[in-house]
Amino acid sequence: MPQPRTVAVIVGSLRRDSLNRKVALELARLAPPHLTLEIVEIGDLPLYNQDLETESPPPAWTAFRGKVAPADGVLFVTPEYNRSMPAPIKNAIDVGSRPYGRSVWPKKPGAVISASPGAYGGFGANHHLRQCTVFLDIPLMQQPEAYLAKVGDWFGADGQVADEKHRTYLADFVAAYADWIEKILRGPGELADDAAKG
Amino acid sequence: MPQPRTVAVIVGSLRRDSLNRKVALELARLAPPHLTLEIVEIGDLPLYNQDLETESPPPAWTAFRGKVAPADGVLFVTPEYNRSMPAPIKNAIDVGSRPYGRSVWPKKPGAVISASPGAYGGFGANHHLRQCTVFLDIPLMQQPEAYLAKVGDWFGADGQVADEKHRTYLADFVAAYADWIEKILRGPGELADDAAKG
Amino acid sequence: MPQPRTVAVIVGSLRRDSLNRKVALELARLAPPHLTLEIVEIGDLPLYNQDLETESPPPAWTAFRGKVAPADGVLFVTPEYNRSMPAPIKNAIDVGSRPYGRSVWPKKPGAVISASPGAYGGFGANHHLRQCTVFLDIPLMQQPEAYLAKVGDWFGADGQVADEKHRTYLADFVAAYADWIEKILRGPGELADDAAKG
Amino acid sequence: MPQPRTVAVIVGSLRRDSLNRKVALELARLAPPHLTLEIVEIGDLPLYNQDLETESPPPAWTAFRGKVAPADGVLFVTPEYNRSMPAPIKNAIDVGSRPYGRSVWPKKPGAVISASPGAYGGFGANHHLRQCTVFLDIPLMQQPEAYLAKVGDWFGADGQVADEKHRTYLADFVAAYADWIEKILRGPGELADDAAKG
Repeated sequence: MPQPRTVAVIVGSLRRDSLNRKVALELARLAPPHLTLEIVEIGDLPLYNQDLETESPPPAWTAFRGKVAPADGVLFVTPEYNRSMPAPIKNAIDVGSRPYGRSVWPKKPGAVISASPGAYGGFGANHHLRQCTVFLDIPLMQQPEAYLAKVGDWFGADGQVADEKHRTYLADFVAAYADWIEKILRGPGELADDAAKG
Repeated sequence: MPQPRTVAVIVGSLRRDSLNRKVALELARLAPPHLTLEIVEIGDLPLYNQDLETESPPPAWTAFRGKVAPADGVLFVTPEYNRSMPAPIKNAIDVGSRPYGRSVWPKKPGAVISASPGAYGGFGANHHLRQCTVFLDIPLMQQPEAYLAKVGDWFGADGQVADEKHRTYLADFVAAYADWIEKILRGPGELADDAAKG
Repeated sequence: MPQPRTVAVIVGSLRRDSLNRKVALELARLAPPHLTLEIVEIGDLPLYNQDLETESPPPAWTAFRGKVAPADGVLFVTPEYNRSMPAPIKNAIDVGSRPYGRSVWPKKPGAVISASPGAYGGFGANHHLRQCTVFLDIPLMQQPEAYLAKVGDWFGADGQVADEKHRTYLADFVAAYADWIEKILRGPGELADDAAKG
Repeated sequence: MPQPRTVAVIVGSLRRDSLNRKVALELARLAPPHLTLEIVEIGDLPLYNQDLETESPPPAWTAFRGKVAPADGVLFVTPEYNRSMPAPIKNAIDVGSRPYGRSVWPKKPGAVISASPGAYGGFGANHHLRQCTVFLDIPLMQQPEAYLAKVGDWFGADGQVADEKHRTYLADFVAAYADWIEKILRGPGELADDAAKG
């Protein structure tokens, strides 16, 4: 059994019945046993404003940073609003990246899924978010890409993916991501974790 | 004297001493007399969440939409956070675009300036924001592009641009934008305003 | 009858049976009578190399520039290769933009269509190409956006669009583009043409 | 001494005195001893056209594919033309990605440098190229990012970098890239090479 790993999952939509949240929950169910996916909530984070970055920043910021920092990896699941990522997920990225020199993101193996009720699968949001990860220094899984289109049709009344084909797709995605995490954390070099060094 | 025009200015940074706000204020001072630039504040807009889009949406959303809707044009002035636009300006874009069918943005002639204390002038934020304007149907001025680099050096103690060269650059930008507004609003076709039709 | 207008059409794929070429030809058939769409070929343009920009540049470059320069507008119809535009259309853009100070592109009202046999309609190519038009100073129609997906199913044995719904979509697109051309060329300001000034 | 590694270097500009070529050659000089950087020429590749992908494709395509395929990694060094990558480097990407199922790119650890005589360091080209690497499945080094601005001032008459600060920057970049190659090739999972498995 591989070493247990935890993944902070950031969901871009705040709706209660968010399709992206359903995708994230399905991924959590389908993940290999050693991989724990946990959604870190972002809906109550005040908009990033450097003036609030005092000795006592907003408690919601501190709590968010405290939840992401210990995770082994980070998975973004995002819809597209107006051909880019929604504000809440950009806000979470910005809050986590600060204060200067204490970003929670660097070196965490990452992946991006975009999901949309529309036809194009959130392509625009997906790649805008990827551009951010370059600066954040999140080593990003490239394949499989995941632009999930017409996701409104994916879920049954029980909130689970109805079609075996879609379930297999998501299971393969999270399995590939689990491999990516091990490659980044256990491959040689500065990102290697203690287990690999021991 | 040309017909008076009003421009809603959206500033991406919430800091009190924001360089982008200083750029916006300087542009307002340098604009042709018939053009009034007014900053519409975005710092208190709750993060967009479709569940709040009820018959009584957050009052800050309603107020924001009410200020942008009557403007003749819209000017975005934005820094870059993590190689994209900051969350507050994306949030303003998303709030203004909803509810479905009642976006405040379509057909308003627009322009984008990015400004940064760093070397690259907010190039990444600038173009991500431009991608949104396609969906929003904001006819966008292409030239002059404005990626203002090392803007921390631009302003004197009085908060105004010190160097004549920089002042001329901004004056030329806002003059070109004033021309763009007239072309879009008075050119033939569906955007043409009453003056042109009269 | 409006003033006649000519549009240079640049097709991104070089294949003989290119779907994008079929889209371009259908648009030419569907265009309003005063609008003439003509494909300018780009397949024989040598790769741009500044060293060849002598007093005698490659004749194919000169011929291409000579065909685009007199057009009233420019329409790009492009597939997506590897999540961006294909090399031939980028090459045509680069060749047309040079030598310095003599670009053929500025001020020509433009539009972009992407078309793909796949599911995402060339979204990545479409927006990369749009980013270029900012520098090129091509005033770009924003709406309707056109990401044509699964275009392999659109055409009958006669090379024409079989489904009335698709034909209507393309007719509406080219009609909107015709309006955009008039707005840009006849609206006030530096782009206004002689007819408008007369 | 680490296992020897070879890197295929793709230079985006075809000019004889290309600044990007100078950057590539300097990186080759500064690379750790086990890392061999070799420029693979792309200037004579016919524009990609699927109709030429027969049993006898253009010999230049075959030769290019034959040079990239055996390399351990791939490094892109590119200028920016019209806010995107130049056509020759996109053409090389497209030629290398075909025919379907036989791409030379997947799983090769990669890095991107953009270099420009202008102020913005080729930011637009850099990120457009990065978007392609997602589809190509090139695991990409995120940090350090490299947007080399005003590179025209970097080189002395001998074609070498004059300023120690710039030389150190490039040496650090290629050292980080050497580490990235080992992490990707020797970390666990499908990309691991024989040495790691042995």
